[in-house]
Amino acid sequence: MERIESHACFGGTQEVWSHASSALACDMRFGIYLPPQVRTQACPVLYWLSGLTCTEQNFITKAGAQQYAAQHGIILVAPDTRPRGEGIADDDDEALGQGAGFYVNATQAPWSANFRMYDYVVDELPALVDDCFATDSARSICGHSMGGHGALVIALRNPGRYRSVSALAPICALSRVPWGERALTDYLGADQDQWRAWDAAALIESATGDRQSLLVDQGDADPYLAQLQPALLQAACEASGHPLQLRMRAGYDHSYYFISSFIGEHIAWHAAALKGAA
Amino acid sequence: MERIESHACFGGTQEVWSHASSALACDMRFGIYLPPQVRTQACPVLYWLSGLTCTEQNFITKAGAQQYAAQHGIILVAPDTRPRGEGIADDDDEALGQGAGFYVNATQAPWSANFRMYDYVVDELPALVDDCFATDSARSICGHSMGGHGALVIALRNPGRYRSVSALAPICALSRVPWGERALTDYLGADQDQWRAWDAAALIESATGDRQSLLVDQGDADPYLAQLQPALLQAACEASGHPLQLRMRAGYDHSYYFISSFIGEHIAWHAAALKGAA
Repeated sequence: MERIESHACFGGTQEVWSHASSALACDMRFGIYLPPQVRTQACPVLYWLSGLTCTEQNFITKAGAQQYAAQHGIILVAPDTRPRGEGIADDDDEALGQGAGFYVNATQAPWSANFRMYDYVVDELPALVDDCFATDSARSICGHSMGGHGALVIALRNPGRYRSVSALAPICALSRVPWGERALTDYLGADQDQWRAWDAAALIESATGDRQSLLVDQGDADPYLAQLQPALLQAACEASGHPLQLRMRAGYDHSYYFISSFIGEHIAWHAAALKGAA
Repeated sequence: MERIESHACFGGTQEVWSHASSALACDMRFGIYLPPQVRTQACPVLYWLSGLTCTEQNFITKAGAQQYAAQHGIILVAPDTRPRGEGIADDDDEALGQGAGFYVNATQAPWSANFRMYDYVVDELPALVDDCFATDSARSICGHSMGGHGALVIALRNPGRYRSVSALAPICALSRVPWGERALTDYLGADQDQWRAWDAAALIESATGDRQSLLVDQGDADPYLAQLQPALLQAACEASGHPLQLRMRAGYDHSYYFISSFIGEHIAWHAAALKGAA
């Protein structure tokens, strides 16, 4: 593990690390913000999953999240969105997110060799972070767009693992939108029964245990609403009695200007869960 | 004048505009953040000048300044750092800032044809902004690195024009550091007497009228301290009785992580001046 960057920021430190990932069979980078409190105590961790075309840089340079993490004493971990490097499968169709990982475990060649972002985010990265930094046992997860999908799906598939989950402009029903149909066909094959396990709205419909409250912000001027489908999330939650706060934000688009406007509210919401009783 | 971007942000709007500049004889872009208050009242303007290698994008995407502008009801205007385009003089030596404008009026060919960033920032841009947006008559100026130099020099050369001036990691004595020696030789020629008019510390030493208080933040882990020379600014202020708050920030470097950590304090300081009595 190698530290690539380190910058003082809001009294703490914004760092970028590179390490050899076994889940992804390549080197991976992640950003980690260590708030000032981490010098004297273990802190909870909020994982952030970014969207299509992003690396670990977008969130740490553009979201303005560090000030809120410093205020609440929360570590922020923001991994790159996909395996990268020589010999790793790729596709030129960036607009369809083919190059992105969608936070699934791919089963089809050539993707299955490296595209196991689900395992990376759920298991490998937290184990590494807990091993190398002063974390306590509480963790939460949040993300944007493709990463909002990732956060919702990961929390829904792992009840009890995250104290709280939220998303900004998430892809709410990956198996039923063009981005997902394309990606899931490639990653998982044509059997659509396999797709439901990676569809947040479908997971809500089929869930049986405790239902963890979801916080979602969505701009109503977002040009990708047809890919995001917040209405399908809302319908699934209503049909299943799943608690959801879906806040439609008038005039906001899909950009980091939207994220930065509301990330403070999300971090405050996660802080309440992370610092409450287990 | 054409609007290139518009994004809802902290209740206001972050926009980017392009226009034909007469001072620079090319098309120029600037970012403008319009806080929510501008819908119902004229607002004061804080001009931001960026550093080497920046465009109008760096500040608006990375500084996290909009939230504070929204809080205080201040318009933020952030122009590109230099004329650009076909037929405009350029130089590959980016590390020496040769491609940047240093906010001077160049007198030497080929630079004199377009490199008049001083006139652009002092006269043309404010006239345009005042003409097209709901501004009141109060304005202040702030910047980073090369832009911190620009802010200090512009305010010092125009007493009474800006309610307040501040800088983050400014180049404090342009005529006496390698970046400036190279740039000023090209822009102004070898006569170093001409250079003093573009050197903040030298302007302070030779000033005679009212002395406007300066606020400067500087990271003590900044790798460019030899180019920035805050000690020369401090010495000039002490020798001249010029009021200066120079805050050395332990551990901070030259990046936008430094800027974002302290921009809120700068905007609050400008807000107090912009909203006080004229």
